[in-house]
Amino acid sequence: MTDRIYNFSAGPAVLPLPVLEEVQRDLIALPGVGMSVMEISHRSAPFEAIIGAAEADIRALAGIPDNYKVLFLQGGATLQFSMVPLNLLTEGRTADYIMTGSWADKALKEAKRVGATHETGSTADTGYNRIPTDAELEFTPGAAYVHMTANNTIEGTEWHRLPQVPEDVPLVADASSDIFSGPVDISKFGLVYAGAQKNLGPSGVTLVIVRDDLLARSAKSLHTMLNYAVHAENGSMYNTPPAFGVYVLGLVVKWLRANGGLEGIAAVNARKAGALYAELDRTGFWKPTAQPDSRSQMNVTFRLATEDLEKRFVKEATAAGFDGLKGHRAVGGMRASIYNAFPEQGVTDLVAFMREFERVNG
Amino acid sequence: MTDRIYNFSAGPAVLPLPVLEEVQRDLIALPGVGMSVMEISHRSAPFEAIIGAAEADIRALAGIPDNYKVLFLQGGATLQFSMVPLNLLTEGRTADYIMTGSWADKALKEAKRVGATHETGSTADTGYNRIPTDAELEFTPGAAYVHMTANNTIEGTEWHRLPQVPEDVPLVADASSDIFSGPVDISKFGLVYAGAQKNLGPSGVTLVIVRDDLLARSAKSLHTMLNYAVHAENGSMYNTPPAFGVYVLGLVVKWLRANGGLEGIAAVNARKAGALYAELDRTGFWKPTAQPDSRSQMNVTFRLATEDLEKRFVKEATAAGFDGLKGHRAVGGMRASIYNAFPEQGVTDLVAFMREFERVNG
Repeated sequence: MTDRIYNFSAGPAVLPLPVLEEVQRDLIALPGVGMSVMEISHRSAPFEAIIGAAEADIRALAGIPDNYKVLFLQGGATLQFSMVPLNLLTEGRTADYIMTGSWADKALKEAKRVGATHETGSTADTGYNRIPTDAELEFTPGAAYVHMTANNTIEGTEWHRLPQVPEDVPLVADASSDIFSGPVDISKFGLVYAGAQKNLGPSGVTLVIVRDDLLARSAKSLHTMLNYAVHAENGSMYNTPPAFGVYVLGLVVKWLRANGGLEGIAAVNARKAGALYAELDRTGFWKPTAQPDSRSQMNVTFRLATEDLEKRFVKEATAAGFDGLKGHRAVGGMRASIYNAFPEQGVTDLVAFMREFERVNG
Repeated sequence: MTDRIYNFSAGPAVLPLPVLEEVQRDLIALPGVGMSVMEISHRSAPFEAIIGAAEADIRALAGIPDNYKVLFLQGGATLQFSMVPLNLLTEGRTADYIMTGSWADKALKEAKRVGATHETGSTADTGYNRIPTDAELEFTPGAAYVHMTANNTIEGTEWHRLPQVPEDVPLVADASSDIFSGPVDISKFGLVYAGAQKNLGPSGVTLVIVRDDLLARSAKSLHTMLNYAVHAENGSMYNTPPAFGVYVLGLVVKWLRANGGLEGIAAVNARKAGALYAELDRTGFWKPTAQPDSRSQMNVTFRLATEDLEKRFVKEATAAGFDGLKGHRAVGGMRASIYNAFPEQGVTDLVAFMREFERVNG
């Protein structure tokens, strides 16, 4: 391990060290192939094996039912904000958006370009510091779909249940920042999408899991690259896929499978988030921002009594090798992003650092 | 160099070995950063330096005028087939498409979804085996733009001049498969785009060079990720960019600059293509497919007397360590893609192998 530091970045984010080591080892020539994974044709047998294994490992890891397609696309969650309504918001229907944070706002903005939308259960009035209750959610009967943001990276909140959407209305989730952080029942969703750069791999790959019947909604008039059905028919290779990203994502999923799968990583994540929130709740010196029942296990957001003190904390933490703790510019404060690949020891060490910081400054 | 072979793939394609070696060396922790380039925030100083250097090196390499933006996008040339007309084909105008091959066909197909188009100078009647003459090009007065495919990867043809478009009509070029293979006068173009995976880097990054005044055509109603003006205003970081791809692309451009720039690589490319075409023309045993004045220096396409002989050649060549020589499935035959990073020695060795194959089978 060559001078690596603790990386609390919200994304792109820390990757498993064994994955990085394998990528490094095989960077110049994949064993038995004689070319770098960046150099091989996407139509070649070696790459077909790589993308096939990535899909198979994802299916095995998350128990994805056979009537769902697994797609590797480009453009991040931001392009999905457009592709979801372009494909699924058909003429004469309304799309419901549950408003839980800045990314939900951005998703809604693109949907409005396509058709009728309805905001349900917004928690904007309390600064998006919580997930709405079931009683707050008013769904449109016969909606095209209901869109939720599974984890709100900026505000540090996360769904710990699923919204009770009407029968026959597909639930669509932006799971960019908590995908595969624990067991998931994909059959509850119509479509799940996630930019890879938090829990899955490097930026530049977007995972989309979509139920087969929804592909029938993709109009032939759609631009080809924006059409889910085209990508599904072509096994994510209508055009050249982001091959290196798919390769690394595949290694990350393999690493998850080798380390206890989603049950295993859920236990690790619960320990990491538990230790950090326990410290934040210990004395009142720290001010966690999310409501307790809505706290994210991935992005732990907190403040201090003054902005000066926050600046001092971030500066001293950075100097001590804890990088990326500054909160998103939209909300300020601090944020510790502790995705799947973030090492437990990093949380232990951060807690000790915080304890000492409180002792000196409290 | 660990068991690398000669990679004639049409893309993703061979990368410079010194670039791969640097990527490998710094894969786990960038010097002075302590994190992998795949793990660092795109809003961090180290990544700002990486993307800034990539842009600066591209500007220096190709002498890009100040009134052009350099963008790093996603989705490959295929998404540009849509973004070009969505942004530039404004109400009431017509877009001219010069039809020189399969990729021009695909570009035109997406433009038709947006507005009026006009085909000019198609060479489809001779199987796209040549670039049209000036006399064959009939432009629409006041066209929104003229679209050309600089190099036709599948058919093995390349423009060796620029079409004489009417004054005030911007020329748009898909330069995916010959960008920076020699000197280029960017000021002759309104917009140039290129998927990275042939001459620039790994797949998953698209380079777009666009003249400032054209950005005014991007309507605010466009989906955010499809809007050139948004990407330009945000320095290609409206959302998370394909960071690893931008990093490798930057190293490739630096390698070009360190090896004689565009003049230097043009000389190398002329020697490589010259040696290969000389062998193809030597006896009549080989059948080069492109008209002599339209031959590509990047993708050298050729046939043999029978398909059986072609199969034998590809099989024996592959066994001898010359990979990727099979032609595109749409046209058959053979194709040797010899992009910037393809080593000269590989051409020398292939010519020797071809000479021996002809001796045995001629």
